[in-house]
Amino acid sequence: MRTHIATSDATSITVRGRDLVNDLIGRHSFTEILYFLVVGRMPEPPETRVLDACLVTLMEHGLNPATLVTRLMADSVPDQIQVAMGAGLMAIGDVFAGTMEGCARILAEGAQSADPARYCTDLAKQARATKQIVPGFGHRTHKPDDPRTPRLLAIAAENGRDQRFVPMLHLLSQAVDSAAGRHITVNATGAIAALLLEIGIPVPVMRAMAVVSRAGGLAGHVLEEQSTHSARHVWDLARQGIPYENP
Amino acid sequence: MRTHIATSDATSITVRGRDLVNDLIGRHSFTEILYFLVVGRMPEPPETRVLDACLVTLMEHGLNPATLVTRLMADSVPDQIQVAMGAGLMAIGDVFAGTMEGCARILAEGAQSADPARYCTDLAKQARATKQIVPGFGHRTHKPDDPRTPRLLAIAAENGRDQRFVPMLHLLSQAVDSAAGRHITVNATGAIAALLLEIGIPVPVMRAMAVVSRAGGLAGHVLEEQSTHSARHVWDLARQGIPYENP
Amino acid sequence: MRTHIATSDATSITVRGRDLVNDLIGRHSFTEILYFLVVGRMPEPPETRVLDACLVTLMEHGLNPATLVTRLMADSVPDQIQVAMGAGLMAIGDVFAGTMEGCARILAEGAQSADPARYCTDLAKQARATKQIVPGFGHRTHKPDDPRTPRLLAIAAENGRDQRFVPMLHLLSQAVDSAAGRHITVNATGAIAALLLEIGIPVPVMRAMAVVSRAGGLAGHVLEEQSTHSARHVWDLARQGIPYENP
Amino acid sequence: MRTHIATSDATSITVRGRDLVNDLIGRHSFTEILYFLVVGRMPEPPETRVLDACLVTLMEHGLNPATLVTRLMADSVPDQIQVAMGAGLMAIGDVFAGTMEGCARILAEGAQSADPARYCTDLAKQARATKQIVPGFGHRTHKPDDPRTPRLLAIAAENGRDQRFVPMLHLLSQAVDSAAGRHITVNATGAIAALLLEIGIPVPVMRAMAVVSRAGGLAGHVLEEQSTHSARHVWDLARQGIPYENP
Repeated sequence: MRTHIATSDATSITVRGRDLVNDLIGRHSFTEILYFLVVGRMPEPPETRVLDACLVTLMEHGLNPATLVTRLMADSVPDQIQVAMGAGLMAIGDVFAGTMEGCARILAEGAQSADPARYCTDLAKQARATKQIVPGFGHRTHKPDDPRTPRLLAIAAENGRDQRFVPMLHLLSQAVDSAAGRHITVNATGAIAALLLEIGIPVPVMRAMAVVSRAGGLAGHVLEEQSTHSARHVWDLARQGIPYENP
Repeated sequence: MRTHIATSDATSITVRGRDLVNDLIGRHSFTEILYFLVVGRMPEPPETRVLDACLVTLMEHGLNPATLVTRLMADSVPDQIQVAMGAGLMAIGDVFAGTMEGCARILAEGAQSADPARYCTDLAKQARATKQIVPGFGHRTHKPDDPRTPRLLAIAAENGRDQRFVPMLHLLSQAVDSAAGRHITVNATGAIAALLLEIGIPVPVMRAMAVVSRAGGLAGHVLEEQSTHSARHVWDLARQGIPYENP
Repeated sequence: MRTHIATSDATSITVRGRDLVNDLIGRHSFTEILYFLVVGRMPEPPETRVLDACLVTLMEHGLNPATLVTRLMADSVPDQIQVAMGAGLMAIGDVFAGTMEGCARILAEGAQSADPARYCTDLAKQARATKQIVPGFGHRTHKPDDPRTPRLLAIAAENGRDQRFVPMLHLLSQAVDSAAGRHITVNATGAIAALLLEIGIPVPVMRAMAVVSRAGGLAGHVLEEQSTHSARHVWDLARQGIPYENP
Repeated sequence: MRTHIATSDATSITVRGRDLVNDLIGRHSFTEILYFLVVGRMPEPPETRVLDACLVTLMEHGLNPATLVTRLMADSVPDQIQVAMGAGLMAIGDVFAGTMEGCARILAEGAQSADPARYCTDLAKQARATKQIVPGFGHRTHKPDDPRTPRLLAIAAENGRDQRFVPMLHLLSQAVDSAAGRHITVNATGAIAALLLEIGIPVPVMRAMAVVSRAGGLAGHVLEEQSTHSARHVWDLARQGIPYENP
């Protein structure tokens, strides 16, 4: 039983073999240390730029389940805002940003297959046949295209991080469109899955990047909730909008 | 009832009046947008450096309640790592990093008082008389001094962000030492309280900066837990270390 | 370091000194063991009836922050309903059912004071002067009276558990009305505070009775959510009802 | 969009078509209303006895992930015990009591198959071949048999609720033993799955019965934690037991 992450004594803190005080604080950005903690080495500048672009993309998307949970909880437990933020972050599950993880799994598996184009075609056909959505595709609001996707892919290209998994995403997109007989949006979580794979973020912890990013966005919602008390308004809307029906 | 934070339509996302795709992604770091979301304007470069230093400081501190909760939960709910992260973040309460908020409240109030030195002396004496710890002071491991504190204060000075609340922290430290009759550690949460006030982070959302920072650290613990299964070991240690006693 | 609660070996489980399999399962109701675990002895039948009445009262109250959080989370993390339930229960804080704890603290302190009537009068006047609500009083919907309160007090009387803290509640109610110059509802959490004190539930764990009770109610909301998907409707209502305003 | 659960106005609260104050409070136990809320009708007395037996069985099992999370959180957020309880309950996932749900799914499907014995044999063989544990079987401590299982089955028999799914559990147990070539424990979650199916608890909300039950147990752990502060001891044990290793 060992941890490789961090230890401390009276006069120092060691984080993955590096001296926190002398080597990390003031020398690296939050984004760089985030990369360092999950990949195990400091990122190259292009990797930092790609990771920053992914994190900025997901931070804030207005009212959604995560922000509504945070606002309701900030109203109920006002003195412990970390509870409101932690609860909201739990909504970043399989249904929402967690699709990033599902898409990354496909891209990673496809990239290792003998015939990536065939892999994508088979997967898209099977999803179509079983009426399942391919993770990373489709969007409730952003149709026919998610405006974040081309921007993210452009940043990947500018930073030379579009060699392996971005091409896989294009193959998958063509296969999905072909199976559907029409164009299906490549949403931001699909693009982010490709970019995070390109910079070496492990799939089992990829969703954590969305959690970190949204934590930043939720800070803004907590602050706004403290002055607007929107939770009470949501409550009223729900009571009026979802009336009781005698069973 | 209005939100000022974000909205989206089919082709665009607007975050606090800025176009996400064209103005923010790829143009600003995560740390800058975090500042933008809670302060309402983009930070100056010195402010970004101070905020990055604060965020990096708190990310990772080894095994503690937050990381233990996350590891136990990652073992119990392995497929939903955002639940493990969200639960761990909830431990950043009044007892631990939340002390940052308490210290910031004191520094902000002191800075507005007619006689800041007197304000600090009175507060320190009263805390001593009622055997209460002044938030931001003392540390379980880092004695007599917290190595992070001088580093953070140096970064504030380098960036010209040590004019108002850092001097208050020094006054408060002298008053605490004087009341105790010995030197008491100014811990990292005390220093961070001063720095975050210097760059304009509002007190009611200050704790959120610790939540965001720790979210990054917890990503590393989730990843390690997936291979080491330390939660089972913690469970065994607890069973052996905390035996049952017949009531 | 010892726990008095439970231990187990290959062939038996001991809960607070009792054999789970032979002494508890099939011999006692859930309500009785709940009492046993927090008070340390089995309840008398009148105590069980009072506790059951309190638990049944709080189980279900329609759409509110706790049930909305649970519904939103059940939609986002559908495979782990315990996450939705746990998150909803966290909303039972100082603002809502937690008022039970605040009221119980007052009733317990008042009952020990030399002049309980004076204690209540002073407290009610001070609350009025500082525009604070006395916990256990007032209700958003149930005006001028909460229909649950007389029913709960009648059950306390039927079971001979209205001798010490129920009279305190009446004194407090008179004092609150007198300070306000009009009748203020004694809400269900106020009545429950008195009843739980009468049967010996400790104040620091009193809120836990509301948590247990609501856990039962949330089970029903999770089940309904699985077929109605109201969370998506709440989301739409919030988006329409809380529009974005340019900052 | 309609809810069938509850509504309230100034003078009444209606829960699934019943008047809370006049029909439910004081007339039914917590266990009966729990059944009413998830099944939609009041239970017969034998059903209540079976449900009480299941709830009592799971309430308390000493130190485990759920209770450790609750203790750690009660130490970090001491003023909001519902947060500690909610967080602990989230650990009742697929790995632990959630196995109840998996077992119930098998028993329900098997009972509807044309050849239940064959269904069980096939499933047990396949699980063996893929080295997967059949949910409801095996236990870390209780070997070769879980003492709770025969007691629960006896209660089902006494109450005439052992006609359909209890026989399925026996078939499945024989198949599991046969596939393993040795006896495998039928654990308490397996027995409870059969019993809850017998009384009509729907599979998608079955895990909620474990959540409700454990909520009761966690109340006891919160209360004990307030006096023993075991969380600090767990923290020390973990630091000593899980040392840092240079990467």
